[in-house]
Amino acid sequence: MDLEPLFSPEKIAVVGASREEGKTGHEVFENLHHGFEGEVVPVNPNAETVEGEEALDEVPEGTDLAVVVVPSKIVPDVLRDAGEKGVDAAIVISAGFSETGNGELEDEVRGIAEHENIALLGPNVLGMINTENSMNASFASKMPGEGSISFMSQSGAFCTAILDYAKAEHIGFRHFVSLGNKAMLNEVDLLEYWKDDDTDTIIGYTEGIDNGREFLETAREVSKEKPIVMVKSGRSDEGGKAASSHTGSIAGSYEAYNAAFRQAGIIEAESNRELLDYGRALAYQPLPDGENVAVVTNAGGPGVITTDEIAEHGLELAEFSDITREELESSMPAEAAPENPMDVIGDAGHDRYRDALDAVMKDENVDAVVVILTPQANTEIEKTARTVVKASEKYDKPVMASFMGEQDVSKGLDILEKGEVPDFQDPVDAVKALEAMNEYREYREGEKTYPDIDYDREKSEDAVGDLPGFDARKRLFDAYGFTLPLTVLADTPKEVSEAFSRVGGPAVMKVESSGIHHKTDMDGVRTGLETKEEVKRAFNEIYDNVYHDTGGGEIDGMLVQEQLDGLEVAVGMKRDPQFGPMVMVGLGGIYIEALNDVSFGIAPVSEEEAERMIKELRSHELFEGVRGEEHSLEPVKDAIMRLGELALNHEEIQSIDINPLILKKDKAYAADVKVDLG
Amino acid sequence: MDLEPLFSPEKIAVVGASREEGKTGHEVFENLHHGFEGEVVPVNPNAETVEGEEALDEVPEGTDLAVVVVPSKIVPDVLRDAGEKGVDAAIVISAGFSETGNGELEDEVRGIAEHENIALLGPNVLGMINTENSMNASFASKMPGEGSISFMSQSGAFCTAILDYAKAEHIGFRHFVSLGNKAMLNEVDLLEYWKDDDTDTIIGYTEGIDNGREFLETAREVSKEKPIVMVKSGRSDEGGKAASSHTGSIAGSYEAYNAAFRQAGIIEAESNRELLDYGRALAYQPLPDGENVAVVTNAGGPGVITTDEIAEHGLELAEFSDITREELESSMPAEAAPENPMDVIGDAGHDRYRDALDAVMKDENVDAVVVILTPQANTEIEKTARTVVKASEKYDKPVMASFMGEQDVSKGLDILEKGEVPDFQDPVDAVKALEAMNEYREYREGEKTYPDIDYDREKSEDAVGDLPGFDARKRLFDAYGFTLPLTVLADTPKEVSEAFSRVGGPAVMKVESSGIHHKTDMDGVRTGLETKEEVKRAFNEIYDNVYHDTGGGEIDGMLVQEQLDGLEVAVGMKRDPQFGPMVMVGLGGIYIEALNDVSFGIAPVSEEEAERMIKELRSHELFEGVRGEEHSLEPVKDAIMRLGELALNHEEIQSIDINPLILKKDKAYAADVKVDLG
Repeated sequence: MDLEPLFSPEKIAVVGASREEGKTGHEVFENLHHGFEGEVVPVNPNAETVEGEEALDEVPEGTDLAVVVVPSKIVPDVLRDAGEKGVDAAIVISAGFSETGNGELEDEVRGIAEHENIALLGPNVLGMINTENSMNASFASKMPGEGSISFMSQSGAFCTAILDYAKAEHIGFRHFVSLGNKAMLNEVDLLEYWKDDDTDTIIGYTEGIDNGREFLETAREVSKEKPIVMVKSGRSDEGGKAASSHTGSIAGSYEAYNAAFRQAGIIEAESNRELLDYGRALAYQPLPDGENVAVVTNAGGPGVITTDEIAEHGLELAEFSDITREELESSMPAEAAPENPMDVIGDAGHDRYRDALDAVMKDENVDAVVVILTPQANTEIEKTARTVVKASEKYDKPVMASFMGEQDVSKGLDILEKGEVPDFQDPVDAVKALEAMNEYREYREGEKTYPDIDYDREKSEDAVGDLPGFDARKRLFDAYGFTLPLTVLADTPKEVSEAFSRVGGPAVMKVESSGIHHKTDMDGVRTGLETKEEVKRAFNEIYDNVYHDTGGGEIDGMLVQEQLDGLEVAVGMKRDPQFGPMVMVGLGGIYIEALNDVSFGIAPVSEEEAERMIKELRSHELFEGVRGEEHSLEPVKDAIMRLGELALNHEEIQSIDINPLILKKDKAYAADVKVDLG
Repeated sequence: MDLEPLFSPEKIAVVGASREEGKTGHEVFENLHHGFEGEVVPVNPNAETVEGEEALDEVPEGTDLAVVVVPSKIVPDVLRDAGEKGVDAAIVISAGFSETGNGELEDEVRGIAEHENIALLGPNVLGMINTENSMNASFASKMPGEGSISFMSQSGAFCTAILDYAKAEHIGFRHFVSLGNKAMLNEVDLLEYWKDDDTDTIIGYTEGIDNGREFLETAREVSKEKPIVMVKSGRSDEGGKAASSHTGSIAGSYEAYNAAFRQAGIIEAESNRELLDYGRALAYQPLPDGENVAVVTNAGGPGVITTDEIAEHGLELAEFSDITREELESSMPAEAAPENPMDVIGDAGHDRYRDALDAVMKDENVDAVVVILTPQANTEIEKTARTVVKASEKYDKPVMASFMGEQDVSKGLDILEKGEVPDFQDPVDAVKALEAMNEYREYREGEKTYPDIDYDREKSEDAVGDLPGFDARKRLFDAYGFTLPLTVLADTPKEVSEAFSRVGGPAVMKVESSGIHHKTDMDGVRTGLETKEEVKRAFNEIYDNVYHDTGGGEIDGMLVQEQLDGLEVAVGMKRDPQFGPMVMVGLGGIYIEALNDVSFGIAPVSEEEAERMIKELRSHELFEGVRGEEHSLEPVKDAIMRLGELALNHEEIQSIDINPLILKKDKAYAADVKVDLG
């Protein structure tokens, strides 16, 4: 879809332009009329003029963009008419569509826009702003300054709040778009448009994305070029419910969003503060080359707090080189130890900051700098701000400032903002912004390897047709290269005894049943079976236990399996309505539920992402082995990638659980495999 | 120590009062001279007058408080002289003591103050402020407004930054104290003083507390009366190092601080923002009665974000009663569903906020309210602010506001601040403040039960004398009521075989050696031993393994132990230099290190604290049992409390590790016990 007519129209018609101050139709027209570089015409059959301009009865020929501010039920007619006049884009500000239950009206509007080939933003939006051509096609009274950040938001109220902050903090924008009900244009269209324009950094707020896979793929392409920061609300169950009742859409599983965002290189922000903090840090400053942070401060306490946060947010306190130490030793006063954090001491003027910054920013061991200033008796706030801006311009390393305080430091803050050095009231936020930048750098630098996964298509298709029995499962996972421990399905005490002869001790016996999910809950598992007597007893006990609980109808037999020792891991797959097959890894056995230590990825999962999924677990050290037991991550990574491939190939499978997957050195055995066809 | 002369002197002498503007001695005198209600005299033998007041050569008789701003080396003489003149309190602003390596000079100053019975604040402080009598005995140019919050800080620069924020945000203080080097007065003295005065809320910043146990006990008493919020910097290893190099003191282990803060009811803040946020929320608003939060908002998106944060921060989204729903249904417009978050819709004026707040705050299911406002076309910012203040005054429930934005909402913010409704730029912070308030309420309401712990003093003292051998350990833990599995120490293959006869199968064999810490690392453990042959083979294998690694000199024999199954837990104790014996609980076996899932308490630990320690673990569900295996928490709580008692009684023991403590139903068995005498 061509969005040029939306962002760069030459002629705009405001349909519903009103004479009456305070009315949305008036505000929108006024906003455009007072600033927009092109032509703006008011359309209002009930008025002669609006703001001194002759009001037309209908959209004139040659109009590129129609901004529609009429009652919702008239919108279809307006759009139809606009289409006939050759209008290419429309912003429907009017509310009263799916958000109030009028989904049919919205469908009608979408249908007309599609038929007339109109790029439709909305309905139910605040509007949009393009600072490049001074176009404020919204009812927001504020026009932000020019900048390189482009913003999109599903929530119009979020837009106004962000506009107000941004204005107060001199944050400029390139494009500012309220997406509203997303009848046609949505996050994907805007990402595509901003991919190749002069936008530096994309930030956004979303409550839910309908076309998840398309979004994931587009975002992955865009984030190779420029950073994307997003707030996703509805992360908790309660928040998800609130989001659904608010937008009428399904919020979707947060795990899937979280995994998708990471795989697409999207930086996630949790609040409006984080969104603007990360956005301006990324837009104003270069990416760090690594994780080593230097702190320059005129007060020890805040320096220590910042050091704590550096450690807490996955960054490192840089170790200064000998040359830097010597330089600092000669330029700083005797009480100022040439160490990181570099405390330039409370009586430091701007020159001491300059010397410290010069020494530190030249240091190859330093990737980024946090400059802290507390307003003390001899502090030169404005001069120091200018010094910081100069240092930031001189060296190609990110500089974050935290001039602590509010009134005393305010002139310094203005200088920093104008010099594009982001300032943070609390040094904690400076560190978090650096963390976000560093994560984005790691993502950009990271490779993505998708090894060819060999599998037996014919065998697997046959097997899927026979699911969910044990034999079909075995064939299916065999076909995808999984190793199962030696396992025999047996039905009678005699068969069980024969099975044990084949399997050998120690053996495990588990009830085989499609209806029983947690076998241990029913006492349906026996381990460490060494003799035929034990095996027989186990058969009878399990049968009794399960029969007692289920009436026996669901027992398909007993699996007798060689008992392997190793680390019990779990891998699994479930389908997400927005993002498709999602794979999971965690500690297995009883730990998976109690620790809730699992991580997710959207299929297909690259080798690097599979490794990241494991490394992200709190229990990841166990996967590499502890105390003499050494494991390789490879078989677990392999299992994750193979599960993803399987899920992509067999859409009829709704979910898979392999728990435990027994990890032993460089092998993994799928000891228990469940498949759900939904 | 009587601090009245410090806080409420009638006559103050400024020693080192200077005529020269910009000099600290001038600023301090000027600050006092312009505001203080009592008498202030300048002492300066080189000046005739300062600010029009006759300068004296020495401290005059009748002086209650001396504020000292002279070069550090003259401070001892000044203090001696002040003592002779009957001065009761001194603030030594001068720097150049232990913070620059002059520890001896500081010791001298402390000695003089003690000898002369002078309450000494400092040295190396910004000074202190008492708004009650308009006393600004500091070189801070700003005097905060009056209020009920009292503040103390080890860092002077932190003071100036907080003063600047507070001034901009209209946060008032009662007392404002810079503690500096804490040669005499420290956190404990101030807590004691503020316990019984009109201070409502105590907030503070510390880098390290020397007298940890005294602090813990005092804070515990004070927090029964009023909340204490503290920032402790140096939480990370790196931060701890930075703090030590900054203050010359040992930062101490953060785990100990964290445990001590919690046991003392101190609310921990991680940054200056959190400190002021929690402080003003606690000072301005009543405590919630529970965890159920209502959200009233004019925008869905921010409502959803707030709901997410409520879930994330251990609070609950309140469920409105039927009456409330009905009331909302009749007072709100049709599109506004009477649900929590209560979206009063973007066109809401102040009256709709009023009706929603009235309905919601009356509801018994609601314990606290977050009011969100985004500046939209019809939003009545100032009127709504007044409405919120009124609601806050009318109902005895905490109200947190988040008027999102900066410029547009600024007049509303002033109204909220004056009405003592805390406002937060980001709703996230409103929720975090409520979380802090709720935690404090839970602490206040919580019981503390210290059950009598019966132990055999004589037996334990005998045993401690014989440590660290197995027999002595067994006797010691026996004496303290621990249950050990049946265990026999054996030295030869023959003895081992006999031991197995007594213990029976399945048995465990482990090497006994005071020099080997991780037995499994050396392959020094065998489990599941069922026959004498297996036992013999195990003996030989372990012996070979350990001999191979250690040369054999450290092998004291083999422990043959009955093998118990159950959940492997770990409990332990180590001594903290500041806070004394600290007990620990976590998952046992290989998990303790890999998951780093442990929690700490300072001995003595109450029954409730022991339970909290367990519940705080991510793995806590395992302690209660999963999938049919049910355990009681009692034996683990009991072990924690007994370890604490043991540590308090036997100071010669430096650390104890019980790993695993095998938990099985309502019993726990100390299967492996290490004791370190340091």
